[in-house]
Amino acid sequence: MKLLEEKILKYGNVPTEDVLKVDYFLNHQVDTVLMQEIGKEFAEHFKYKNITKVATIESSGIAPALMTAIALGVELIILKKQSDKVLSEDILQVKTKSFTKNTYYDLTLSKKYISTDDNVLIIDDFLANGAAASSACKLIEMAGGTVAGIGIVIEKSFQPGRELLDNLGFDVYSLARISKLSPEKIEFLEELHIC
Amino acid sequence: MKLLEEKILKYGNVPTEDVLKVDYFLNHQVDTVLMQEIGKEFAEHFKYKNITKVATIESSGIAPALMTAIALGVELIILKKQSDKVLSEDILQVKTKSFTKNTYYDLTLSKKYISTDDNVLIIDDFLANGAAASSACKLIEMAGGTVAGIGIVIEKSFQPGRELLDNLGFDVYSLARISKLSPEKIEFLEELHIC
Repeated sequence: MKLLEEKILKYGNVPTEDVLKVDYFLNHQVDTVLMQEIGKEFAEHFKYKNITKVATIESSGIAPALMTAIALGVELIILKKQSDKVLSEDILQVKTKSFTKNTYYDLTLSKKYISTDDNVLIIDDFLANGAAASSACKLIEMAGGTVAGIGIVIEKSFQPGRELLDNLGFDVYSLARISKLSPEKIEFLEELHIC
Repeated sequence: MKLLEEKILKYGNVPTEDVLKVDYFLNHQVDTVLMQEIGKEFAEHFKYKNITKVATIESSGIAPALMTAIALGVELIILKKQSDKVLSEDILQVKTKSFTKNTYYDLTLSKKYISTDDNVLIIDDFLANGAAASSACKLIEMAGGTVAGIGIVIEKSFQPGRELLDNLGFDVYSLARISKLSPEKIEFLEELHIC
């Protein structure tokens, strides 16, 4: 997505090798025009997948996921990061490692918001090692739903997350795919369009 | 706001006295039609305030705040809940108590996203004791900005937050004002319109 790549090149900050900060338009300040374009782009890409719900992981995924849900005309589910196990039959949890913080949290979903009829599109801001996205997929499937696709705003293609999700058989669409990231240079992969 | 009050009465869950769970349409599953209406309502109410930015507190405030920012045509700032002090000249923090979790966090803002020209509208999902909202106001003012107003989705009017913010001189507008909350009954105050 050209507009997004331009924003990354203009406002992205690479303090150390492999770390990209996009606080200017995505994670701290949120560019509302860009979010609407992102929502439209994901909705266009997944429009034939009969999506019934969008799911995301709190909190930086919420803005792009909400705009995607609105563009598709469906509800949004926010998967919660809990620090403790919740003992309840209605609650599903998957232990997940945060690579940025090097801690664990329990990604949490209340069963009643996903049914066996649901085709769920998972949206997240970043894909690096794929821990959060694969836990989100697992939760949706534990609740009986189907993961219809995964939409990622920024994929760090040199890290193993994309390959992990591809190998699990998920349909992944990333709006910006970064092949190389250093304080000197940010390079993108082209998204392959197979017709 | 009639639509919101109806949702609270239909889907709100009061497990114990004074606690309202709105996981069905605001905090876990997000009703995207309702969020758009909420955004329009806040934008309409504050349209003469020359709002330059909307700010909110992660993570349940993000959805209504994003829709408000879009309706006003401005950017959104997400104030972060950090568990640790950040030692940097560019970062402002205010220690804040979470009453739901009975813990403290540092509400965090990067200075560069608020300037002395900014008139900021703060949006949050709940107002109870007013700790989060008053910390948000303090951060905006520490950065040199002006708090032009505070928009609250659900105010628990029997708790001290509203009075605290009124006494600090802020312009507060709440879409639903709950005067009484028990497992048996939810009652609302009428918002006074002074012409």
